[in-house]
Amino acid sequence: MTATATRLAPSAPSLEPMVQLVSADLDRVNQVILDRMTSDIPLIPQLAGHLIAGGGKRMRPMLTLASALLLDYQGTHHHVLAAAVEFIHTATLLHDDVVDGSDLRRGRRTANIIWGNPASVLVGDFLFSRSFQLMVEAGSLKVLDILSNASAVIAEGEVNQLTAARQVTLTEDRYLTIIDAKTAALFAAACRIAAVVADRSEAEEQALDAYGRNLGIAFQLVDDAIDYVSDAGTMGKDAGDDFREGKMTLPVILAYARGSDEDSRFWKDAVEGRRTSDEDFAHAIELVRRTKAVDDTLARARHYGSLAIEAIARFPASPAKAAMIEAVEFAVARAY
Amino acid sequence: MTATATRLAPSAPSLEPMVQLVSADLDRVNQVILDRMTSDIPLIPQLAGHLIAGGGKRMRPMLTLASALLLDYQGTHHHVLAAAVEFIHTATLLHDDVVDGSDLRRGRRTANIIWGNPASVLVGDFLFSRSFQLMVEAGSLKVLDILSNASAVIAEGEVNQLTAARQVTLTEDRYLTIIDAKTAALFAAACRIAAVVADRSEAEEQALDAYGRNLGIAFQLVDDAIDYVSDAGTMGKDAGDDFREGKMTLPVILAYARGSDEDSRFWKDAVEGRRTSDEDFAHAIELVRRTKAVDDTLARARHYGSLAIEAIARFPASPAKAAMIEAVEFAVARAY
Repeated sequence: MTATATRLAPSAPSLEPMVQLVSADLDRVNQVILDRMTSDIPLIPQLAGHLIAGGGKRMRPMLTLASALLLDYQGTHHHVLAAAVEFIHTATLLHDDVVDGSDLRRGRRTANIIWGNPASVLVGDFLFSRSFQLMVEAGSLKVLDILSNASAVIAEGEVNQLTAARQVTLTEDRYLTIIDAKTAALFAAACRIAAVVADRSEAEEQALDAYGRNLGIAFQLVDDAIDYVSDAGTMGKDAGDDFREGKMTLPVILAYARGSDEDSRFWKDAVEGRRTSDEDFAHAIELVRRTKAVDDTLARARHYGSLAIEAIARFPASPAKAAMIEAVEFAVARAY
Repeated sequence: MTATATRLAPSAPSLEPMVQLVSADLDRVNQVILDRMTSDIPLIPQLAGHLIAGGGKRMRPMLTLASALLLDYQGTHHHVLAAAVEFIHTATLLHDDVVDGSDLRRGRRTANIIWGNPASVLVGDFLFSRSFQLMVEAGSLKVLDILSNASAVIAEGEVNQLTAARQVTLTEDRYLTIIDAKTAALFAAACRIAAVVADRSEAEEQALDAYGRNLGIAFQLVDDAIDYVSDAGTMGKDAGDDFREGKMTLPVILAYARGSDEDSRFWKDAVEGRRTSDEDFAHAIELVRRTKAVDDTLARARHYGSLAIEAIARFPASPAKAAMIEAVEFAVARAY
């Protein structure tokens, strides 16, 4: 297995081994999710169900489950906690779509478009509260500490991103701080809590935290890169979405820093919302290619992917470990 | 003191005894609030501080503190928990103002008007997460259970209210369900958690829960009545706000049920947003007076006030008990 740990991007890495591995556990988690998004107020399961049933990969709960398998955890608390993690994630998506005014997610109309912003805000609050109820049921103050910290960090990251919006001068450093908070923190917590319920050492907690965090950063960077890869239609998002919304992501940060004065003016116009046409997007792709901005975004993703794999080197070889390694390889290979 | 327990609405009941009673504790709570709404992202303390420093009475944290004094609790966990309760309340207000599109609260511009809806949603999420971090610090899973349940109930109540919005046929029963959830649940939890940290019996927990819950309902009903009392300018809200927003409150429910067919049409038009002028509001006041809808709303508030006072009858006489009784009398006397 040590050979595998240093091998990145084999011919066709896949999420399938992890999906297979956690399949039975994930059925239990999905049952908890369905049971606990019910309410006497019909709009709540309607709206929550639209997003929860709407084609998400359950990446975060899968990480909790895979981490528990890695540690050979024999209890059942991880099912409830994986559902809590998914509820936090879903609440965040509902509020994100309100904040961004998004109208499509995973190819479907967003809840805020169908039911309005007020309903999305309030059902998000409900799911967020429900997630804490689930954590209380699992009975671990330490898990509550980890997930309440993660939630606060996510919200801080979202506010940080909001205050940085449409600023072409955003630095790579601040950008990494933002994605560390808004994406990687929940990946890290999802993995870490498995070590807590399995009553493992602080070092093992930290190892799983590092695995999740680095995977989360790699995942987000590849997502950012995909937006500038024109044949990315099968990847769950459409190329150009970020560009048309003027989002500052790493490809833009790198291309802006490396371009000519004329290029800089183009990016400033784009980020400030004055260049959103198909021709503008074609020009943007040309610029990120010329400056190797996508290549280097993906190189950074591979770097964080390597860190994720290294983080779990201490654990003995097992199907769970192999699946977790291949999940990283899949994450960083998605854009090729 | 037993005589006091059955006396309602004396000449000039006041919140002052409770304010005096908890003054030193509330200073500690305010310090926790200030310390814990900080963040590296400057917008968070700016926006949160606008609302938290903006003239709120700290009613809910005061109830936690007064309840702890009633029980002669000697620890310090109640300071952190009272701050957690205020954070939940503040998060709810931030999201409420987004949901209602409000532009004024307590006579000041709302955060959503100054900083926009996205910032209000996300800072609300931050405060909500922070409140759970504070609860974890206090270290009681039972408190976490109570406050996560209350939060879920509040969100459900808000969604229930949203789906009932602008429906003139709303029943008194459903209306009470809504205010029980969106207002009374947090009053109840704020009081109950004092019994938990003081390690008192389930019966004492329930007594304080009932005190807070009934006070919360009374409080909300009086708030609803004040909107139709034209000289209510000093009460922290302007008369007619609810009317102009087409809000279904108990005075409207009663006046609608008791009015002529012509009156019913007027109320339908008003609730559906087609009657918002000063003349319309004057006519509405005339109708609620004629049908005794405000009188009976206040009578119901006194009923719930009596239940609140009865709920704490079991506790021995003390300055805390006297202050808690007078707080109820103040709450139900505000509209006179």
